[in-house]
Amino acid sequence: MSELKSKFMEVYTILKAELLNDPAFEFTDVSRQWVDRMLDYNVPGGKLNRGLSVIDSYKLLKEGKELSEEEIFLTSALGWCIEWLQAYFLVLDDIMDNSVTRRGQPCWFRVPKVGLIAVNDGIMLRNHIPRILKKHFRGKAYYVDLLDLFNEVEFQTASGQMIDLITTIEGEKDLSKYSLPLHHRIVQYKTAYYSFYLPVACALLMAGENLDNHIDVKNILIEMGTYFQVQDDYLDCFGHPDVIGKIGTDIEDFKCSWLVVKALELATEEQKKLLHENYGKADEASVNKVKELYNVLDLEGVFTDYESKSYQKLISSIEAHPSNAVQAVLKSFLAKIYKRQK
Amino acid sequence: MSELKSKFMEVYTILKAELLNDPAFEFTDVSRQWVDRMLDYNVPGGKLNRGLSVIDSYKLLKEGKELSEEEIFLTSALGWCIEWLQAYFLVLDDIMDNSVTRRGQPCWFRVPKVGLIAVNDGIMLRNHIPRILKKHFRGKAYYVDLLDLFNEVEFQTASGQMIDLITTIEGEKDLSKYSLPLHHRIVQYKTAYYSFYLPVACALLMAGENLDNHIDVKNILIEMGTYFQVQDDYLDCFGHPDVIGKIGTDIEDFKCSWLVVKALELATEEQKKLLHENYGKADEASVNKVKELYNVLDLEGVFTDYESKSYQKLISSIEAHPSNAVQAVLKSFLAKIYKRQK
Ligand SMILES: [Mg+2]
Ligand SMILES: [Mg+2]
Ligand SMILES: [Mg+2]
Ligand SMILES: [Mg+2]
Ligand SMILES: [Mg+2]
Ligand SMILES: [Mg+2]
Repeated sequence: MSELKSKFMEVYTILKAELLNDPAFEFTDVSRQWVDRMLDYNVPGGKLNRGLSVIDSYKLLKEGKELSEEEIFLTSALGWCIEWLQAYFLVLDDIMDNSVTRRGQPCWFRVPKVGLIAVNDGIMLRNHIPRILKKHFRGKAYYVDLLDLFNEVEFQTASGQMIDLITTIEGEKDLSKYSLPLHHRIVQYKTAYYSFYLPVACALLMAGENLDNHIDVKNILIEMGTYFQVQDDYLDCFGHPDVIGKIGTDIEDFKCSWLVVKALELATEEQKKLLHENYGKADEASVNKVKELYNVLDLEGVFTDYESKSYQKLISSIEAHPSNAVQAVLKSFLAKIYKRQK
Repeated sequence: MSELKSKFMEVYTILKAELLNDPAFEFTDVSRQWVDRMLDYNVPGGKLNRGLSVIDSYKLLKEGKELSEEEIFLTSALGWCIEWLQAYFLVLDDIMDNSVTRRGQPCWFRVPKVGLIAVNDGIMLRNHIPRILKKHFRGKAYYVDLLDLFNEVEFQTASGQMIDLITTIEGEKDLSKYSLPLHHRIVQYKTAYYSFYLPVACALLMAGENLDNHIDVKNILIEMGTYFQVQDDYLDCFGHPDVIGKIGTDIEDFKCSWLVVKALELATEEQKKLLHENYGKADEASVNKVKELYNVLDLEGVFTDYESKSYQKLISSIEAHPSNAVQAVLKSFLAKIYKRQK
């Protein structure tokens, strides 16, 4: 484990201990143990890219100046707030999608004796964020902006989830609703704001910046997030389950994936018919027919092409930004995801 | 409908229209309609006591001074935030409890095509609260205190839900865990903070008060909330389904209800055995045996006794408070729930 990551994990231990002794609630022993286990199961087991990038971004904004112990702690705490937010959304998303595995282990709601208590556990995860913020940021000038930021980004994420969910309602499976603009809208809201904009926005606030002056940064990060989700859609089908940590089910789940949207765009009438007949069915034969079509249409090649064009476009936008420190933040972000395999 | 209530409903219409046109999200037509219907189904159909009491309390704090149009709007908006919070908790609670009806209609997740999308709808309801607060209170001196207040109360409510849920885990049904102190703790957190303390705290903040100076008011309201939940437990079994708007299932659901806790306290060894054998079973015969025992133990009489003693105790605490305006707020609250039938 890198030094940065082990420092980051130390902060997790501290935050967890504080939450398990929060004076706003009188824990019973059983409930304290429950939260302890629930946090360990759901919060720290991911790639932690979102969380770590708050620290990275803040360092770059400080242009190489050594961070104080307090700055390291606070950027880490904000990073963990994003990881908590992610955990909250994933726990609930897995319930709604009836998923099986997450990060190489059973989804939380599938753990014996958890079941639908996982709904409230998701809510608990979400509620820990303002507890962390209040404890460590209440006296800061940017405290209210932090609260507003987390609230707005959560709202956008939940709204993105909503359009994702209602376009895939059981019994109304209609591929003709799917298009690139719809895909873009879902992705922008359900992934890009919290995964890309939020970490950088946290770092900007800590550096004393006013977010209203950084709309251009937001737009670039949202574009980057869109690119990231296209990768996610791609890996769901073409990635290796052992590497990505889950078995992709976008085809079975009738997801508005970039792959199916591209396939619809490129397909002949006959191929479209095949898609309409087989997309969103759970049986292996149907899934394989869809995958074969993806191969016939060379979606791997189409994706590779999309990937390099997105990269070029993002680099140009980044290099147009007046601040070198901000450029460094954005480039570091992009480098982390370009050509990722998981 | 009273004039106050129809004014209050007008504010609902305004807030809903604002939320359906929130610039932080690009709605599709379908998603706007979805939220519209979801709000109408879940938010305004209750008794609205919590929401209306923000206005009532604020009026009493102003000691009869006529409220301005702005004050009426803002107190109503805060009242609606509490109704939104309640709707959020009820939508998710019904999923977790596998409930059938709510406020005389099917639970939201049972509505065709909704299903587990209701989880995200609950989240949407929750996310609307900071949207409303930001739009209408961002410039107020007490804005950050409002955010902190809603965050803390939500945390306490979710924590109360958690102990409620984990004490009733399937396969670990063990009545010997149930006691008056556990019951009190569940009730205090899952009901009293948001139903009793929150409306008055909102009114106090709007009146320019510092909540740290009103710990005594908080304690009295928490006691009142406990009494309210005991009534709720009582009505679940002894109330009329047409009047309370739902069919009680606390016995079937193995709930840590005040009734079963009292029964355990009063029962002979033989009666305890009967309780252990029949509590938490879904079949009518078992449920009826529990209800018969409740009658044999005269829990109606025990409840009536509890009710008048609680009332006396609350009145004494209220009359010990130095401010007449605050006394009026607390007495008005108590009058609304004393001897309620629904
Ligand atoms: Mg999912
Ligand atoms: Mg999903
Ligand atoms: Mg995916
Ligand atoms: Mg319930
Ligand atoms: Mg419940
Ligand atoms: Mg009840």
